[in-house]
Amino acid sequence: MLAPPEYMPALITPFTRSGEIDTRAHTHNLRVLGDVGMTGFVIGGSNGEGPYLEPGERGRLVKTGRRRKAHFMVGIAAESTRVAVRQVQEVADAEADSILVMTPTTIARGRDEAILRFYRTIADMSPLPVFIYSVPGVTSYNLPIELVWRISRHDKVVGMKDSSGDVVRLQSIIDATPPGFIVYSGSSQALTAAMAVGCDGAITGSGNYLPALVLQILAATKESPETARRLQKRLSSVSADVEAHGIPGVKAAAKAAGLDPGYPREPLTRLSRGAETSIAKLI
Amino acid sequence: MLAPPEYMPALITPFTRSGEIDTRAHTHNLRVLGDVGMTGFVIGGSNGEGPYLEPGERGRLVKTGRRRKAHFMVGIAAESTRVAVRQVQEVADAEADSILVMTPTTIARGRDEAILRFYRTIADMSPLPVFIYSVPGVTSYNLPIELVWRISRHDKVVGMKDSSGDVVRLQSIIDATPPGFIVYSGSSQALTAAMAVGCDGAITGSGNYLPALVLQILAATKESPETARRLQKRLSSVSADVEAHGIPGVKAAAKAAGLDPGYPREPLTRLSRGAETSIAKLI
Amino acid sequence: MLAPPEYMPALITPFTRSGEIDTRAHTHNLRVLGDVGMTGFVIGGSNGEGPYLEPGERGRLVKTGRRRKAHFMVGIAAESTRVAVRQVQEVADAEADSILVMTPTTIARGRDEAILRFYRTIADMSPLPVFIYSVPGVTSYNLPIELVWRISRHDKVVGMKDSSGDVVRLQSIIDATPPGFIVYSGSSQALTAAMAVGCDGAITGSGNYLPALVLQILAATKESPETARRLQKRLSSVSADVEAHGIPGVKAAAKAAGLDPGYPREPLTRLSRGAETSIAKLI
Amino acid sequence: MLAPPEYMPALITPFTRSGEIDTRAHTHNLRVLGDVGMTGFVIGGSNGEGPYLEPGERGRLVKTGRRRKAHFMVGIAAESTRVAVRQVQEVADAEADSILVMTPTTIARGRDEAILRFYRTIADMSPLPVFIYSVPGVTSYNLPIELVWRISRHDKVVGMKDSSGDVVRLQSIIDATPPGFIVYSGSSQALTAAMAVGCDGAITGSGNYLPALVLQILAATKESPETARRLQKRLSSVSADVEAHGIPGVKAAAKAAGLDPGYPREPLTRLSRGAETSIAKLI
Repeated sequence: MLAPPEYMPALITPFTRSGEIDTRAHTHNLRVLGDVGMTGFVIGGSNGEGPYLEPGERGRLVKTGRRRKAHFMVGIAAESTRVAVRQVQEVADAEADSILVMTPTTIARGRDEAILRFYRTIADMSPLPVFIYSVPGVTSYNLPIELVWRISRHDKVVGMKDSSGDVVRLQSIIDATPPGFIVYSGSSQALTAAMAVGCDGAITGSGNYLPALVLQILAATKESPETARRLQKRLSSVSADVEAHGIPGVKAAAKAAGLDPGYPREPLTRLSRGAETSIAKLI
Repeated sequence: MLAPPEYMPALITPFTRSGEIDTRAHTHNLRVLGDVGMTGFVIGGSNGEGPYLEPGERGRLVKTGRRRKAHFMVGIAAESTRVAVRQVQEVADAEADSILVMTPTTIARGRDEAILRFYRTIADMSPLPVFIYSVPGVTSYNLPIELVWRISRHDKVVGMKDSSGDVVRLQSIIDATPPGFIVYSGSSQALTAAMAVGCDGAITGSGNYLPALVLQILAATKESPETARRLQKRLSSVSADVEAHGIPGVKAAAKAAGLDPGYPREPLTRLSRGAETSIAKLI
Repeated sequence: MLAPPEYMPALITPFTRSGEIDTRAHTHNLRVLGDVGMTGFVIGGSNGEGPYLEPGERGRLVKTGRRRKAHFMVGIAAESTRVAVRQVQEVADAEADSILVMTPTTIARGRDEAILRFYRTIADMSPLPVFIYSVPGVTSYNLPIELVWRISRHDKVVGMKDSSGDVVRLQSIIDATPPGFIVYSGSSQALTAAMAVGCDGAITGSGNYLPALVLQILAATKESPETARRLQKRLSSVSADVEAHGIPGVKAAAKAAGLDPGYPREPLTRLSRGAETSIAKLI
Repeated sequence: MLAPPEYMPALITPFTRSGEIDTRAHTHNLRVLGDVGMTGFVIGGSNGEGPYLEPGERGRLVKTGRRRKAHFMVGIAAESTRVAVRQVQEVADAEADSILVMTPTTIARGRDEAILRFYRTIADMSPLPVFIYSVPGVTSYNLPIELVWRISRHDKVVGMKDSSGDVVRLQSIIDATPPGFIVYSGSSQALTAAMAVGCDGAITGSGNYLPALVLQILAATKESPETARRLQKRLSSVSADVEAHGIPGVKAAAKAAGLDPGYPREPLTRLSRGAETSIAKLI
């Protein structure tokens, strides 16, 4: 695989008005972000409405982008192991580069042994490198660090994305996992702090609407902490306002940044015209 | 439809070792519980591993039981509206009597307008009466009462199951909804208290393993509060121990009560032999 | 002692504008509530601004009322054991009938052994019967039931007030404590439900502003559950609105009911004129 | 005043077996930590058992140390405004350098206007510079950032200590307050991350037991992030283990580091011999 870059946007998925994937818009979005300098993308993550994607759709999103030389990490979002396994097979067939596996949520939430078994089964069968995905804003669950440690010992598990925004937790994850284990932070507001405690990179929704700023901040964290902090202030402020509206907010902001966000899938809908305009002013 | 009875078990779904629905065991379970006096069943609720059921499976579970004269309420568990709509069509085709629609969880959680739209779209298209289902233990979300009120105004929405176990909340739901709106409590431990504040009935996992006791308690709430409280003490104690193990615990207890629970679907698994034996002793 | 009655108001403490106890107003309030039928009072509980009372003030509040034939239960609110012990001595000297001991909050919160030691030391030295007081709205802490059980085994500990409003928890406390252990619920909204699960009585702030209604509900719980539920609906609705304003809300409502609430102690202040008027309309 | 240094230990308060302040031990502790390089101390903070200190004791702790050339910041821990005001007068009379005012907890918690009034009254009367103190582990309350901003506009309010350990929150506080407003982080585990997002310094309990390490980390954050991270790993690990035992844990660790911790005040007690030994091994 192409090694995953330090930063990837958690790419939005554009749907047509009738709720089908809009591949033309998807291609456009990959190109726009590629032109800004993005060399990797998370497809079908939570900002990509992963929990709404249906059989065949993950593969289609990957294949559409595949000509582009970039790392494609694809979100796996399933409750039962067998549905997760089918999703993995589908994205492997589509030649994705890696998978980002969300913790199962509903009836397995908090059942440590079940969650461990879920990840191990997937890691055993996956032809692609596996990233763990803990995203409490979506799942209401923080994967316990002890469990991260147990899962990380599997050969196929190469890293994690943690979207808690809890910097002390990120640091603990880094301390608890083997050298070389790749830790991405999933929080725009914790971008500089996450890098300061040793994260390898970040994957955020803000890469859809402030891609250049995000890349600047990451560069600045290495050279000028003072600059990083100043740019971070803007990113924190804008992303807080945008993400208060959830995915429809991210899509509205992405539109203002030149992407074609299409429609969200129901029950989500586009923001009102007024809210879209307010968000556009922030970008 | 056959009116839904005051009490229904949230029926477990038996799977074979390889993870397929075991219709023979399902038929057996319906018969065993019918013999104790159950005249209605919730199929594919959270105790029925609803979030793990796949296209076609809800219909199959209903059709398998359909010869039995009973009310079949079927769980709808979906994140996107369109997946929910397909599930409703499937169970309507299978001639279920009503549907129990879980609040969407992941990316719509807490988005009031999205959740309202989700319920309204389903209510508009459903040929079957709709029950709202708020189950924070599974979804990490308590449907706000103001939203219950707004959804309850739709003609097709006839009631609700609330599994918060919060008796003051149940009372507020009853106070907030129109006369005739049917409120079921989903908590074994709050059974007597829920009836005392005016719930119409209950739907619980304990109906799988202590069916006679549950029916006795409900009868006693009308005649002898003192007896109800005494029986409730046993129900509370046993159900707390059983449900600490999640669905595998309910299945182990159901087995001790004469049902054939089959296997849970992965990533859930059967309890260890030792834990199964401890639970069997409680029944 | 005069046995504590089934219901007692958690009496407000009137302060003068300059922040001193207003004994004249206090005497008035005891008389007004006595005339409605109250035969016991909690003095210096959380609604009585117990955490603001200073050395000597608890004793003064009790002595002021002592001529009245009523049960006086006095709130003990301290962080260190030795301050609690001084408060107990003071109220025993003033001839109170019992004490209601709030769980210590700040640096002992969640330290089970410390809390157990706190209660045992007090129970050992107290000449008055001890009631445990768990009030999470004030302390952000629910005394664990296992700890209630351990404390309840002390001879001097005769009961508990639990203000969680969690009816299942109340039931568990009753189930876990010895026969004869007196359990009061501290939630207006859970009044009927608490009695339904077997509480011995209630102590609430609403006794300051809807004293007759509260007594009617308690009478109705024994004779006509239907009436109790109907009256409860009004109590729940009014108390939710009043208590949204905290103690200043309770004082405003008490004023509308004929009590003289004086001023709260700083940093609390009287409600604005407009808010006072809105609350008066509810009573 | 002597300007407050970048780092201060939240000094423990040694009590004798009978619960009185042990000034001899206190003098010893100031000397030991001064020898390591500490030039400022927080007296009577939460690690100093501030909520247990009685009238006269804060003044005595300050006067005992006053000969030493150091910044003395003293914790104010009160529920009512007038008790807080008396504490401020006492420590001003004792010639402290600044005060650290804990948010009121019990009946004012969450009442924004009351909390704002509390801080304004204190700031108006205090002859000493005021630091706000938000410490959710003790108070179960995070002072809302909007309220921090409003309080920070008072001339006398010069800074804040925030012990949430939430680095994104720290960053938001810095962004929301005026230039020159001093922000201390109160979390050992977030030490490097807090400095990375722009905090001015830190005040932690770990300064009692790993004073040299803490000072090394702070120095390293400016010169070698890599070294800072490596040292932070040890600090995080040890402080997590120590603080799991609360203040008795901090006192046991301080003893291992050469301080004389005396006894905690009841209901806290010394750790068992076994637990003390385990903690000593960590230091």
